[in-house]
Amino acid sequence: MAKLSIAVLGAGNVGGALAHVWSVAGHSVTFGLPDPQSEKSRAAVSKLGGQVRAASNKDAASSAQVVALCVPWLAAEAAIRQCGNLSGKILVDCTNPLKPDLQGLAIGATTSAAEQVASWVPGTKVIKAFNTIGAANFGKAQFGSQRADGFYCGDDAAAKTSILELIDAAGLAPVDVGPLRNARCLEAMAMLWIDMAVNQKQGSNHAFKLLRR
Amino acid sequence: MAKLSIAVLGAGNVGGALAHVWSVAGHSVTFGLPDPQSEKSRAAVSKLGGQVRAASNKDAASSAQVVALCVPWLAAEAAIRQCGNLSGKILVDCTNPLKPDLQGLAIGATTSAAEQVASWVPGTKVIKAFNTIGAANFGKAQFGSQRADGFYCGDDAAAKTSILELIDAAGLAPVDVGPLRNARCLEAMAMLWIDMAVNQKQGSNHAFKLLRR
Repeated sequence: MAKLSIAVLGAGNVGGALAHVWSVAGHSVTFGLPDPQSEKSRAAVSKLGGQVRAASNKDAASSAQVVALCVPWLAAEAAIRQCGNLSGKILVDCTNPLKPDLQGLAIGATTSAAEQVASWVPGTKVIKAFNTIGAANFGKAQFGSQRADGFYCGDDAAAKTSILELIDAAGLAPVDVGPLRNARCLEAMAMLWIDMAVNQKQGSNHAFKLLRR
Repeated sequence: MAKLSIAVLGAGNVGGALAHVWSVAGHSVTFGLPDPQSEKSRAAVSKLGGQVRAASNKDAASSAQVVALCVPWLAAEAAIRQCGNLSGKILVDCTNPLKPDLQGLAIGATTSAAEQVASWVPGTKVIKAFNTIGAANFGKAQFGSQRADGFYCGDDAAAKTSILELIDAAGLAPVDVGPLRNARCLEAMAMLWIDMAVNQKQGSNHAFKLLRR
C-alpha cells in the first residue's frame, strides 16, 4: 500500500489520534493549524513526541495528497478557506455539526456537514469518515473478537479506495455506505454515539457495526 | 412475562411481520385499519392465517395496552387521530419519515417522526422502535452467531421495560439508546439502512449492532 502525504487540520482529540495512528502506519503526516507557532499548537504537537510536524493550514494542505478535516464544526469553513486551492485532492471530513449543548445536530436531514464542506471546495474529492466513533477508539477499536466499523461515504470511487488504508490504520473495519449524501445519516449516528457517551455518561466503549449475511 | 394486548396499526410489511411474531409469542394482536372490511384489509389479514383479527383503528386501539404505529409516515397522523384517546397507553412508533423518492428524510435534526407523533397524543407513552431494520428480518434476525439489535428510545422508563418482550419476540437484541429525542438519530440510521437496501440494491441482509466492551 502506497504511503500517503496527509495534512491533518486540527490537533485536538480527533486530529491528534488520527495523526498518531497514521504516522505509526508509516504515512507522512503534518498538522495544519491556524497558528502553528502558538503555545497551544506547540503543546499539541509535542504531545505526539515529535513524530508529526506542524505547519499553517495552507502549507500543510498544499503538499498533501489527503487532507483530513478534524476541527470543530464552527471552525471548519475558516480552516478550509485557509487551505487555498484543494482541487483534485482528497478531503476527508471527520466533523460532526453538533449544537454547542450536544443536544442535537445543528444541520441535517436536508444537508450535512460533508455536503457543506463539498460546496466550499469544488473539484475536491470529499469523503465523510472517522466521525461515528470516539477518537479514544482509534488504534484501539477491537471489541472482543470484533472490530468496530469505520463507516465512510463519498461520490468518488477512486478516492474511496485510496483511504481504505487510513481507515484500517485506525483499527477500524471499513464499511462503504454509499454517496456523500449519506453523511447526513453518519452524522446522525455520530450524534447518537455522542449522546450515549456524554449526555448518558456511558463513556466511549461502544461502537457501531454493520452485520451482513 | 405478561402477555400483552396489542393493536398494530397498518397491515403492510412492518405491521404484518410484527403481528406475526408477536402472535406467535402468545400476545393478543389486533390490526387497526381505516376500513377493516375492505378487500385489501381482508387480504392482508387472511395472509396471516387468521391468527390476527382486524378492527377499525379506534376499536383496535381502545382495547389495547400497546399500540404499534406501522403505517407510512404520510398516513400516520390520520391513523393516530382515528384511534381517539390514547392517553396512558404505550405507543410504539415504527415509522420513518421518508421522502417519497427515498432520497432522504422529510424531517430530522431538529425533530423526528416520533416527536411529532408524541405531540399528537399528550399523555401517551411514546417509544420509537422497530424502524432501523427491514421487516424481512423480524423473527429472522440472526446473523451468524450474532443477533441484530432492536434500538429503541423513549422518555418513560416503565413503558420501555414493558416493550422489551416485544423486541425480543421479533428476534432482536434490545438496545436502549435514551430519550425519545434520539429518534432523530434512529430515523437517520433507518434512512441509511433503506438507502443500502433499495437505492444501492443490497437487499435486506444487513443490520446495525452496537458493540460494547
